[in-house]
Amino acid sequence: MTATPATGTTQSTGTTGAYEPTDRTVPTRSRDRARYDRDTVHAILDEAYVCHLGFVRDGAPVVLPTLFARVGESLYMHGSTGSRPLLAAGRTDPGLPVCVTVTHVDGLVLARSAFHHSLNYRSVVVHGTARQVTDEDECRTALDAMIDAVAPGRSGDVRPANAKELAATAVIRVDLDEVSAKLRTGPSSDDAEDLGLPHWAGVVPVGRVYGTPVPAADLDPGIAVPDYLTAL
Amino acid sequence: MTATPATGTTQSTGTTGAYEPTDRTVPTRSRDRARYDRDTVHAILDEAYVCHLGFVRDGAPVVLPTLFARVGESLYMHGSTGSRPLLAAGRTDPGLPVCVTVTHVDGLVLARSAFHHSLNYRSVVVHGTARQVTDEDECRTALDAMIDAVAPGRSGDVRPANAKELAATAVIRVDLDEVSAKLRTGPSSDDAEDLGLPHWAGVVPVGRVYGTPVPAADLDPGIAVPDYLTAL
Repeated sequence: MTATPATGTTQSTGTTGAYEPTDRTVPTRSRDRARYDRDTVHAILDEAYVCHLGFVRDGAPVVLPTLFARVGESLYMHGSTGSRPLLAAGRTDPGLPVCVTVTHVDGLVLARSAFHHSLNYRSVVVHGTARQVTDEDECRTALDAMIDAVAPGRSGDVRPANAKELAATAVIRVDLDEVSAKLRTGPSSDDAEDLGLPHWAGVVPVGRVYGTPVPAADLDPGIAVPDYLTAL
Repeated sequence: MTATPATGTTQSTGTTGAYEPTDRTVPTRSRDRARYDRDTVHAILDEAYVCHLGFVRDGAPVVLPTLFARVGESLYMHGSTGSRPLLAAGRTDPGLPVCVTVTHVDGLVLARSAFHHSLNYRSVVVHGTARQVTDEDECRTALDAMIDAVAPGRSGDVRPANAKELAATAVIRVDLDEVSAKLRTGPSSDDAEDLGLPHWAGVVPVGRVYGTPVPAADLDPGIAVPDYLTAL
């Protein structure tokens, strides 16, 4: 996992069910780690609920962590209607150019040589345009999806947003069009001449873990932890 | 955690041991969540080893996940010498404008109302300039720090990079100058009129977990898992 940008020439996959590679989504290095099929991309996106949203402000890059959810071939994010990129996405045509990146770290890869150290990871990079959603039904669907991305099933067990809350919330959409996944899996690798060195080599799995839910101090003690939370 | 950009006017903290807030590091919303003291910033950075590096290419934002480490008041990243942003950082003066963002998710915050759902998180956003490191000692220090960021102590238990490997590795540095942290901690919160609703409310802690190290298939069985890995 290194700061290697995508570049190269446009290729045709000829595959339905895959995103068409572009100049921006074909990496210069480790091309064998790139994936374009929707199943792989969707699985990486759906396992996450925080993305890193990049945009350009005054010519300089800005990267902010934010909650997101995928609905079909779109990603949705939200923010205050007073937020500058969201306003820009709504005001300007054709929207705000963004890059949305989602990353899972799956393992520490320790080789005998410093050089071959790596991480097992799965990431998705989306190049696209953020547009503010104006349709109320689409806003509600997106907000529900964001809640369910965090805790699947939760959106049916809350007080829905009222008109005032909806008005204070800007929802933006980024369509999935120019998209790639990149991943590393598997064991460590070492140069043949290093195999006899006395250093431990292998992979340390990394994952996400949920603790015991902590009820609000003012929660009615008769309200049990719902199944969709214990299932996490 | 919403896509809310930093903006506002420059403030003076008058505090030693803190980063000076700037237009870009003072948020428009949730200002009470912003932190500028070095201890808080460093702790968030040091608990991570993956950042999201943003830069501008052909006028569009690019966000890539990459390994990093902090050494003093600098962040270091690395990549192939063939990588475009790294080359740009080395070639151009005064370097490549970047935004480096590090995020930890600590908890799912579930309120009775959809609107007050949130995440507990800690993030750091660094606005700065990436410059390629040319001093060999500084490169080695940075590469060791990146290995130790993943597994503290590991850099002393590997074969160090040789001249050929060093030549193939570009190291970039981003100095910590325009930096802010943002965090949410604590319980869920609900509007007073929602407290009687029959929905569970509270926080589900989220953390990182390490599995049992998996030795390489070709590892000498006499080499035990080192203490610095079991300590993870």
